[in-house]
Amino acid sequence: MVSARMSDPKIWKTCVGAMVNLIEEAAFKFTPAGVKMKAMDPSHVALVDFELPAAAFSEYVVKQPVTLGINLTEMDKILSRAKADDELILELDEKMNRLAIVFKGASTRRLSLPLIDVREAELQEPRIQFTATAEILAGIIQDGLKDAELISDNVRFELNDDGFFITAEGDRGSTELRLCKGDKGLLNLSVKERARAMFNIKYLTDMTKAAGAADVMKISLGTNLPIQLDYPIAGGVGKLRFLLAPRVESE
Amino acid sequence: MVSARMSDPKIWKTCVGAMVNLIEEAAFKFTPAGVKMKAMDPSHVALVDFELPAAAFSEYVVKQPVTLGINLTEMDKILSRAKADDELILELDEKMNRLAIVFKGASTRRLSLPLIDVREAELQEPRIQFTATAEILAGIIQDGLKDAELISDNVRFELNDDGFFITAEGDRGSTELRLCKGDKGLLNLSVKERARAMFNIKYLTDMTKAAGAADVMKISLGTNLPIQLDYPIAGGVGKLRFLLAPRVESE
Amino acid sequence: MVSARMSDPKIWKTCVGAMVNLIEEAAFKFTPAGVKMKAMDPSHVALVDFELPAAAFSEYVVKQPVTLGINLTEMDKILSRAKADDELILELDEKMNRLAIVFKGASTRRLSLPLIDVREAELQEPRIQFTATAEILAGIIQDGLKDAELISDNVRFELNDDGFFITAEGDRGSTELRLCKGDKGLLNLSVKERARAMFNIKYLTDMTKAAGAADVMKISLGTNLPIQLDYPIAGGVGKLRFLLAPRVESE
Repeated sequence: MVSARMSDPKIWKTCVGAMVNLIEEAAFKFTPAGVKMKAMDPSHVALVDFELPAAAFSEYVVKQPVTLGINLTEMDKILSRAKADDELILELDEKMNRLAIVFKGASTRRLSLPLIDVREAELQEPRIQFTATAEILAGIIQDGLKDAELISDNVRFELNDDGFFITAEGDRGSTELRLCKGDKGLLNLSVKERARAMFNIKYLTDMTKAAGAADVMKISLGTNLPIQLDYPIAGGVGKLRFLLAPRVESE
Repeated sequence: MVSARMSDPKIWKTCVGAMVNLIEEAAFKFTPAGVKMKAMDPSHVALVDFELPAAAFSEYVVKQPVTLGINLTEMDKILSRAKADDELILELDEKMNRLAIVFKGASTRRLSLPLIDVREAELQEPRIQFTATAEILAGIIQDGLKDAELISDNVRFELNDDGFFITAEGDRGSTELRLCKGDKGLLNLSVKERARAMFNIKYLTDMTKAAGAADVMKISLGTNLPIQLDYPIAGGVGKLRFLLAPRVESE
Repeated sequence: MVSARMSDPKIWKTCVGAMVNLIEEAAFKFTPAGVKMKAMDPSHVALVDFELPAAAFSEYVVKQPVTLGINLTEMDKILSRAKADDELILELDEKMNRLAIVFKGASTRRLSLPLIDVREAELQEPRIQFTATAEILAGIIQDGLKDAELISDNVRFELNDDGFFITAEGDRGSTELRLCKGDKGLLNLSVKERARAMFNIKYLTDMTKAAGAADVMKISLGTNLPIQLDYPIAGGVGKLRFLLAPRVESE
């Protein structure tokens, strides 16, 4: 039995909205402790790591661990039908082999989607020795990516003692975003060693676009290492993490 | 002579906006008592029945009955140019064989469209023995249709002693909207006998999309009978009614 | 050296936004007195005349006159990235042969675009004996053009003692906008002689669409003469003028 209830549909909606651009199918593990999901994108460049503990739900009943295979595109379409005031309920319909997503508001709407078989890869999250981290308003990151998109497919992220930098270079010009120590959008900066690496803009855009402009994201970087992006989920009790492999810089 | 004036362009705009998705050409009969129009869609599945009495206009001058053939697509485009504060005037230009639609606001804008020949069918509105009726916020109906659209082309409407139900089934899942007695969106429920029938979603969407979410629509149903939808027009003095034939349920 | 600073990015953005639909490349002359640009559209039907004196900038440093060739499409894309609260800085990067457009706000974003070679035509602005002028809310002109667009490619502008008129005729009907003396949208009317001429709607739409609905534009007309449109720029200290050749009316 699975029955999980949230007073705000936004948490689940944001998480699925952030995943759906990278992976199409996901195996959500519902256990008495909470929900987990880990997956790589088809080209194995990006990894999603999601956890929502039972405490993040207003009501959470899972007797036996169960893994639910979900088509994220379909789930995302259903979640787009949520209204801001709706209560969200996830319910396993074992007989029909479906997951029901219930929106309780002006009416009660029950949208069910078929469960699918999803091969669960045993993913070991890589241990990376990041040399710098920062907490940054998502809107700032989104702006830097949109700027860079005008002229290139790739973007360089850098954290150093001065702050956070997004730069891009192309035939049609260059872009640079500087967010310096003291700027309001930079909430925390911790630099052991200057870190910079280049990434594909489309992946970073997909990973960040579900965030609200005022959400605080945590960035972890190391020179020519993968970037780690952490969403602020359910007031800190959940985890939505993305890892993205760097592009080799030809310099 | 035809000259009809309304202080709010929205009434006429909503009516034409609701019709235009179903029928392309319409014959509006202007008589001293008011305006009438009745038409079926090209595939003869849906019927539109429209009446706006002289009292719905702030000024209404029609000496002799006259039938004006109108291309609704063109009229709808012209009405889309209305501003909320504009006064709307309809004026027959006999010399040019055109209908002038005048918007009086910051400026006076006169948009005229050519009259066309429209064959008037003698439509007898069918007498249907509905077994249940309800008054429902249009936004609720629109939500149920949008949900159902995710997974099917058809939708089942049901009225019973518990309330109003919209359900759909498909390979990609199922949807169900429940609006129960006591819910705010259900303003009136009168059930002689449980009534349910299946309809094409696209037709129902076209019929309801011109309504505001807070408008109250009246639904009349009978098992496997056509559905009748009544718009609230001009504070109740007018009539905008749709009839839609049911789909045969294969069960 | 070129370094020009404006507290409001909107002025430069509106000007470029109005030009970009007509001309793709422009040669901006930066002199100690200010910035100038004059160009014709590729089909030589329309002329743009732009001037922004040093006083329109909060800071303006140009030692030597220099002409910067700009791809307006690229510049417009960059300016679309400005936020309302950003400060805008234009800076010549001589080493890289680029113009940097800097947005200072929550972060500092520097978007640079390559300078290009633009042939400077010696354009003599024609001396036209307009017989009527008016100051009109841009929103009114935009409305009249959008109305006319429904039925024709051309539109007639007229100024006479009664006011301002936009009319169009086509197989699909006719449109007429009347803005009479005394109407709020007509701020000034000066008619030596009734003036009317026909113009291409697309050009007029391109010339006026960057204006806000409440901006006051000045129209100068003469019968079968070009139309002159003046934007209100930087509180009157700048100049953004369009001239458009008339269509020959076949009557």
